[in-house]
Amino acid sequence: MPATTAPATFSSLRPAPAGRSVEILDQTRLPFAKAWIPLARRDDAAHAIATMQTRGAPLIGAVAAFGLALAMAEDASDAALTASAALLAATRPTAVNLAWALDRLEALLHPLPPAARAEAAWAEAWAIAHEDAAQCAAIGAHGAARLLAEISGIGGIDAPSGNPIGTRTLAQAGSVGTATAAPRPLNIMTHCNAGWLATVDHGTALAPIYRLHADGVPVHVWVSETRPRNQGLLTAWELAERGVPYTVIADNAAGLLMMQGQVDAVIVGADRIAANGDVANKVGTYLKALAARAHGVPFFVAAPVSTLDFACPAGSAIPIEERAGDELRQVPGRDAADRPATVRQLPAERPVANPAFDVTPAALVTALITERGVCPASDAGLAALYPERASAQPR
Amino acid sequence: MPATTAPATFSSLRPAPAGRSVEILDQTRLPFAKAWIPLARRDDAAHAIATMQTRGAPLIGAVAAFGLALAMAEDASDAALTASAALLAATRPTAVNLAWALDRLEALLHPLPPAARAEAAWAEAWAIAHEDAAQCAAIGAHGAARLLAEISGIGGIDAPSGNPIGTRTLAQAGSVGTATAAPRPLNIMTHCNAGWLATVDHGTALAPIYRLHADGVPVHVWVSETRPRNQGLLTAWELAERGVPYTVIADNAAGLLMMQGQVDAVIVGADRIAANGDVANKVGTYLKALAARAHGVPFFVAAPVSTLDFACPAGSAIPIEERAGDELRQVPGRDAADRPATVRQLPAERPVANPAFDVTPAALVTALITERGVCPASDAGLAALYPERASAQPR
Repeated sequence: MPATTAPATFSSLRPAPAGRSVEILDQTRLPFAKAWIPLARRDDAAHAIATMQTRGAPLIGAVAAFGLALAMAEDASDAALTASAALLAATRPTAVNLAWALDRLEALLHPLPPAARAEAAWAEAWAIAHEDAAQCAAIGAHGAARLLAEISGIGGIDAPSGNPIGTRTLAQAGSVGTATAAPRPLNIMTHCNAGWLATVDHGTALAPIYRLHADGVPVHVWVSETRPRNQGLLTAWELAERGVPYTVIADNAAGLLMMQGQVDAVIVGADRIAANGDVANKVGTYLKALAARAHGVPFFVAAPVSTLDFACPAGSAIPIEERAGDELRQVPGRDAADRPATVRQLPAERPVANPAFDVTPAALVTALITERGVCPASDAGLAALYPERASAQPR
Repeated sequence: MPATTAPATFSSLRPAPAGRSVEILDQTRLPFAKAWIPLARRDDAAHAIATMQTRGAPLIGAVAAFGLALAMAEDASDAALTASAALLAATRPTAVNLAWALDRLEALLHPLPPAARAEAAWAEAWAIAHEDAAQCAAIGAHGAARLLAEISGIGGIDAPSGNPIGTRTLAQAGSVGTATAAPRPLNIMTHCNAGWLATVDHGTALAPIYRLHADGVPVHVWVSETRPRNQGLLTAWELAERGVPYTVIADNAAGLLMMQGQVDAVIVGADRIAANGDVANKVGTYLKALAARAHGVPFFVAAPVSTLDFACPAGSAIPIEERAGDELRQVPGRDAADRPATVRQLPAERPVANPAFDVTPAALVTALITERGVCPASDAGLAALYPERASAQPR
């Protein structure tokens, strides 16, 4: 829990100089340009979420909360509160954090007189931001410990004290089957972007990696491109900003690398986790989970409580967002003169399907990592960590 | 077997007007521009294969044969024959068709006097091209029959005569679990490009699809983009040229679509099939095979005899080509003015791994489809179709 709800400058979100508004990093321009966008009105926040200027399940929850706070400054009536919450909730369908944050603000604000709502909403939005950052830091600690414990199970090597991974002599398994005696880092694969860009700070899936890196444990990250929106490029960018070694791969290469023994663990974030532990996350996650299972690679999902949907019994009940086909048809980058540019790789009339998420069954998830600790991906596992939420409740 | 070895105009390869040379469709410019490249010298052919101006395992076998024929016109000595075959064989490492075609020409040419080699090589290269087209047509017939037979096993529907698929009333399974009574086409997923662009004509994986389409069976193809080289865009282009319905998807969407029951079968080509039925194909194939197995979707591999490597006991012995990182860092397309253009989506210094193939274990392959018929992906299955090749022999 945060010590304060005062404005703070986080990695992906900061107070605007103008006063009661915030600025976000424009993730549609990263990694090609780094620009902050002011969110001064409700509709700025709604637009930023819908167009993925801001993205990542935990972060869009916080930005939605700021959006509702901005809405209260415009019109704090009961009708406006209900309408603005509904408008913001409709910007993205899959991540439950969005509904979680808006429900929390609505529950707080409806009992208050309209004149008090803007102030209260603003404080609560900052509280959510602080909590998210603190929860992600806790995920980092729990996840780092679990990854270190996992190492002890690989190759029959006991978990040593000190710097355990730098002295590992695992075989570089693979199709040629050769073994090397050279120490190598812990090889962790991730998908999409679940780092400090996708949260208010620290990240979910990447938080344990940053924590290991800060603790001096050699880590190397396999970053999958994550078509069609290429969030892997965001992951590469933010890892580079923090000096963590990584290699970018095509999403298609994940199975080969696991077959070759080049992946010690997979860790991803989530957009919604059902009560039974099924995980909705960026499309392609499920393929990595299947490959991890086929090769005995542990597959972790890291998320804060706001991603847990105790009212959703199973993954089959999670709506899968279908996004615009041009996300696949067009690719952004920089042109020969190093200016931001976009190429069309498929004509506009070509038929495209663009589901943004998929569901990984709980049976393929080695463990969930939350701000409270590590648990099995199951009703019982989640009930043990969240006894107060264990009975399904309508949001 | 071909009725003639005379030059013919195929879909991806044709005689050059200038006489003893050929032209190929430049696949690095497709689908953004359609251009034919003349191959007038050995080094033109080697360059075209190495840079993927021509690609597809069967087609690069044929183009290598033309390359060796062009080499013989330049220098038909024993030393030149050996050196040119080695040079052409080194252009790509994974597809065995390349070595197969070169071995076939070397075996023919070495016993001949140098003065007779150019003429003989030219005739043999055309023979290989004709054979490839004929074999692909046979794959189309065998594969179409097998896909129709497969339908009878889906949803408990008997295989009817006439137009079987148009009257199917399969549930549109998926996360929402609704069923529809509307007829729908046979939904076939493919990966990479194994159509008439990847062969001398007709294709391997796409040949059965073209055959079903020609026979009036409603077919719809899920075309995965196939990062990093985006050969799926070639597949979309060639399907559109022939009027076959398709939808392009990100590679990442394959698992979700299978979970939703939207895929009736997967069919891919191959770059090399080991004696035990393990399949090397474009990276990402293995992930689709894992997902197909998880959902009971039949997974077929279509390839001609030149792709079978009886001397290779298992997939672990197949070399996996690592290609340049800029294939992942840069993306071609058309700019805002509709001119061919490339954007860089990742700076040149960013670390990238780019393995071009992966290996799908035989256990995940429902059946192999070759010019001789359909067989289990196993030593015994291949031995039954190719009794004369069944004992491993050095190439």
